[in-house]
Amino acid sequence: MVSVSLGANKYGKAENRVVRIYRDTPRHEIVDLSVTSQLRGAALASSFLEGDNAMIVATDTQKNTAFAFAKEHGIPSPEEYLLKLGDHFVSAFDWIEGGLWQAEQYEWERILVDGVPHDHSFVRRGQGTRLATVQKIDGATHVTGGVKDLTVLKSTGSEFSGFPRDRYTTLPEATDRIMATSVTGRWRFLPDAVDAGIDFNRLYTEVVGVLLSTFATVHSLALQQTLFAMGKAAIEAHPEIAEVRFAMPNKHHFAYDLAPFGLENPNEVFYAADRPYGLIEGTVVRDGVDAAPGAWVDLPAFV
Amino acid sequence: MVSVSLGANKYGKAENRVVRIYRDTPRHEIVDLSVTSQLRGAALASSFLEGDNAMIVATDTQKNTAFAFAKEHGIPSPEEYLLKLGDHFVSAFDWIEGGLWQAEQYEWERILVDGVPHDHSFVRRGQGTRLATVQKIDGATHVTGGVKDLTVLKSTGSEFSGFPRDRYTTLPEATDRIMATSVTGRWRFLPDAVDAGIDFNRLYTEVVGVLLSTFATVHSLALQQTLFAMGKAAIEAHPEIAEVRFAMPNKHHFAYDLAPFGLENPNEVFYAADRPYGLIEGTVVRDGVDAAPGAWVDLPAFV
Amino acid sequence: MVSVSLGANKYGKAENRVVRIYRDTPRHEIVDLSVTSQLRGAALASSFLEGDNAMIVATDTQKNTAFAFAKEHGIPSPEEYLLKLGDHFVSAFDWIEGGLWQAEQYEWERILVDGVPHDHSFVRRGQGTRLATVQKIDGATHVTGGVKDLTVLKSTGSEFSGFPRDRYTTLPEATDRIMATSVTGRWRFLPDAVDAGIDFNRLYTEVVGVLLSTFATVHSLALQQTLFAMGKAAIEAHPEIAEVRFAMPNKHHFAYDLAPFGLENPNEVFYAADRPYGLIEGTVVRDGVDAAPGAWVDLPAFV
Amino acid sequence: MVSVSLGANKYGKAENRVVRIYRDTPRHEIVDLSVTSQLRGAALASSFLEGDNAMIVATDTQKNTAFAFAKEHGIPSPEEYLLKLGDHFVSAFDWIEGGLWQAEQYEWERILVDGVPHDHSFVRRGQGTRLATVQKIDGATHVTGGVKDLTVLKSTGSEFSGFPRDRYTTLPEATDRIMATSVTGRWRFLPDAVDAGIDFNRLYTEVVGVLLSTFATVHSLALQQTLFAMGKAAIEAHPEIAEVRFAMPNKHHFAYDLAPFGLENPNEVFYAADRPYGLIEGTVVRDGVDAAPGAWVDLPAFV
Repeated sequence: MVSVSLGANKYGKAENRVVRIYRDTPRHEIVDLSVTSQLRGAALASSFLEGDNAMIVATDTQKNTAFAFAKEHGIPSPEEYLLKLGDHFVSAFDWIEGGLWQAEQYEWERILVDGVPHDHSFVRRGQGTRLATVQKIDGATHVTGGVKDLTVLKSTGSEFSGFPRDRYTTLPEATDRIMATSVTGRWRFLPDAVDAGIDFNRLYTEVVGVLLSTFATVHSLALQQTLFAMGKAAIEAHPEIAEVRFAMPNKHHFAYDLAPFGLENPNEVFYAADRPYGLIEGTVVRDGVDAAPGAWVDLPAFV
Repeated sequence: MVSVSLGANKYGKAENRVVRIYRDTPRHEIVDLSVTSQLRGAALASSFLEGDNAMIVATDTQKNTAFAFAKEHGIPSPEEYLLKLGDHFVSAFDWIEGGLWQAEQYEWERILVDGVPHDHSFVRRGQGTRLATVQKIDGATHVTGGVKDLTVLKSTGSEFSGFPRDRYTTLPEATDRIMATSVTGRWRFLPDAVDAGIDFNRLYTEVVGVLLSTFATVHSLALQQTLFAMGKAAIEAHPEIAEVRFAMPNKHHFAYDLAPFGLENPNEVFYAADRPYGLIEGTVVRDGVDAAPGAWVDLPAFV
Repeated sequence: MVSVSLGANKYGKAENRVVRIYRDTPRHEIVDLSVTSQLRGAALASSFLEGDNAMIVATDTQKNTAFAFAKEHGIPSPEEYLLKLGDHFVSAFDWIEGGLWQAEQYEWERILVDGVPHDHSFVRRGQGTRLATVQKIDGATHVTGGVKDLTVLKSTGSEFSGFPRDRYTTLPEATDRIMATSVTGRWRFLPDAVDAGIDFNRLYTEVVGVLLSTFATVHSLALQQTLFAMGKAAIEAHPEIAEVRFAMPNKHHFAYDLAPFGLENPNEVFYAADRPYGLIEGTVVRDGVDAAPGAWVDLPAFV
Repeated sequence: MVSVSLGANKYGKAENRVVRIYRDTPRHEIVDLSVTSQLRGAALASSFLEGDNAMIVATDTQKNTAFAFAKEHGIPSPEEYLLKLGDHFVSAFDWIEGGLWQAEQYEWERILVDGVPHDHSFVRRGQGTRLATVQKIDGATHVTGGVKDLTVLKSTGSEFSGFPRDRYTTLPEATDRIMATSVTGRWRFLPDAVDAGIDFNRLYTEVVGVLLSTFATVHSLALQQTLFAMGKAAIEAHPEIAEVRFAMPNKHHFAYDLAPFGLENPNEVFYAADRPYGLIEGTVVRDGVDAAPGAWVDLPAFV
């Protein structure tokens, strides 16, 4: 007789597209999120095991709450909004022990009319998507910020050489190449800093700025090196950050072989390949802080 | 006995990802395109009918040419580059009567390092994608520019009312709503203006600016009205433009019903829907110019 | 003073996801569509020009009608359902002169339980998506069926040689290659056959069968030749079909160069490339039938 | 002075599109994979920290190896192929301590010609994508199989009621609803069974069959209940399986409100929504087997 048990689980409502307009003055503000709420708790097992939903806070209720909170509490930052949501569920339902609340934020810029930013008309920015998560697990609350799809390229200042060669190695050494990647990164905030209050919006802008300028200025011997330097710079610049995790695809740009046509190609004409791509993933950790594996449970591993 | 014939056809290589770096000075420039080349000609029928490829300029050859031309002729603008490609194929192969050459351009901004734009490090802009096409057909050459996925939103200044009501009508009249769309537009250049020389890059920037500011400033009674106003403004501002075609999805943002929770929602909290969406398509034509249906052959109808 | 006019236009609601369950007996049937309805008419200009919506049948009303008709008239086939929708709009609103109604159909198979097809549980088929359109334009009604994303591959029986060589040609001749494509095709039904009544569902299955078996059995000298043969076979097998349009990407599979590793590769190991890809488009027309350019207005050109 | 360290990391080449044709007889076989190889090892830190690549087996070398092994060792099943790859890297390079090797497999069916399966012509199946992974970590080797995007629907036999109601709850109880999901699941093989040899291909087909038939036959009180029943059935049927993890979006189908049109809708006409969607995730574990958290490191959490 085979017997089985329920292991790790959670459930909720994913990708609620919550758009909050602040219109108290003629100069409107917009916050545009995709919000996911998921709950955990030992009492939820009866739904899995027996279809007994007495403890299942409906995913529809989670959705309603996400929209209602956008009005009741506003969205000063995605992190603060998710903290409110998470606190609500674990306090309103005593059998809910934790959960994971995630947001993507789509940024908008004011349209310029004769050089003047318009009061209520916006154009989508499109330069990376902001990420935020709140994790409640094992009695702790973890907060991370992040960015995804921040696509960058440097047309020189990158090389890759000195790697080992075996029977399957054909790659030539490169002393000058295009390096391009689409940065996905998440940074975990120190719990003490969260408790003390963080200006999450300002921090996001500044971290992205540090990531970009580090990418630009590091002469790269490997994408691995650039990744580490970017994480190190973010942590050095921001005492609120405990660690940073990155996934960076190496979006290969191959110099096109123009020799058959009697042309030279001194790194001027490239073919941008789709697949396969390199995939470099790594974590940069501030020394001396407590590890927090719970923060990362069920988050995408690097990507 | 059934007999059949070959009708309209063309063939070529699609989505060649051509990246051109200008590195004559330490301040690099980047042009990043997806290029499609397709050829037409009566002599090509033998390949379709009999598998005789004597007249088939291989799609691989078209690809090679696209990359080689990025070196030989450079890419001052996607339109000029496509004109060179098109002229080449119809002149190098006397049985090639025409074709369609298309490009998407992905724009990059210089990364700011301490407020200074970097020489060779870039971040993808992501605010719309530039479009260009050259069509050679029936002995004429047509050039269009365009943009796609330029996502805009206004949080007020939009209404929709006065529409007819029938048995299937449930939509209430709206005097204040969010209006959001993702603009795809193409503008056809007057042949005389092309012959005289156009600064295509400057024009693109200016047209997008006019589209955005018109979207922002028109008080909208219908997305149709906004569409027409945007096309009209582009044509008025730029004598080089003969006509503009638009496809504009109405990306619905529904005010979320917060009444069940005892909350008011004076257009502050919205649900951004995916599907279905409105889809408004239209053409704005400068009076007095010759129609050019050939310009639009095989281009997406509006979208 | 610049003056402009409104050119071609239409508007409506796109991608209504209509799912119809027939449950008159315990053995349920499912029809799963994405429906787009768009209207045309000279009287609609006032909305574009002045924001006067008195003639604008709201896109929301078009949506409601699409769902209501799924109940009132059922969906015996996507073509018949779209014909009902189109007839309704031009008869219910005398200023609506025409329009374009499109559907994609997602097919489901019954789940097998102990080898027996289940009464009400289904698994998505995923082998191509069925297409249907009804076009009303210039007083005529046109009906097309079709398929998209029908991905096929033959591991031999395909060659490509005899093509012209110029300065930019590097492609070697191939006497044995993988040929793979993702077929998108649309077939126009003869108006007389539509009037006489067509079993659209049976026809769809049979046409796809003919396309597949022709792809399989034709020894291919060029994808162009295969395309033409497929269209010819469909027309020969089905007197209801006036013409067929195809777009076929040549999804390149390149034999991987294993020589550096001391291995032979007699067409056994391939790299499946994403971009660029060949793109072959063509039309096969039954001789002796009237041309119907109106049928294809605003449909994707080939793809 | 801030000091930082390198945490968890790995690197490699992602989405190598390896297609293997077996053509020893006229009846060809095809195996079509997307393969990702990533390596781990303490010695790799020097690349991150200093840009020293002496220990970095190039991602290009990993790619070459993936293609070469398709010839040298063939691909009897994705699991066996990944085991070969993993064993190679940790044995050929003594500083490589582990890694993660993943494959997606795209299935093809033979095209029927006059009812007979063709020897070398195939059509893509499209009903879910097969998954396989090999993880080497902490001295252990873990193997998982899986499936993603297996989309299923039942048009009755599903209810959801008895859930708690709070201020934010508006969902009515449902005694008969459509239940639809897109199953992503991974099952971990018992190490002893892997050592003894598993017919991975047969097992995959059988597990998918069990998942489908369980979905079909369980009268569902909650998607959670269906999820657990599916995992339980797979484990009961296959002693090789230690545990199963699932992510199941609840793809909502809402009965369309036809009352405003004077029509009844006894669960016949539905609107298939995109976002938001329910998201139910859970693990079913065979009692008495050792936990293996290492198996799941860096795999997507449920999804």
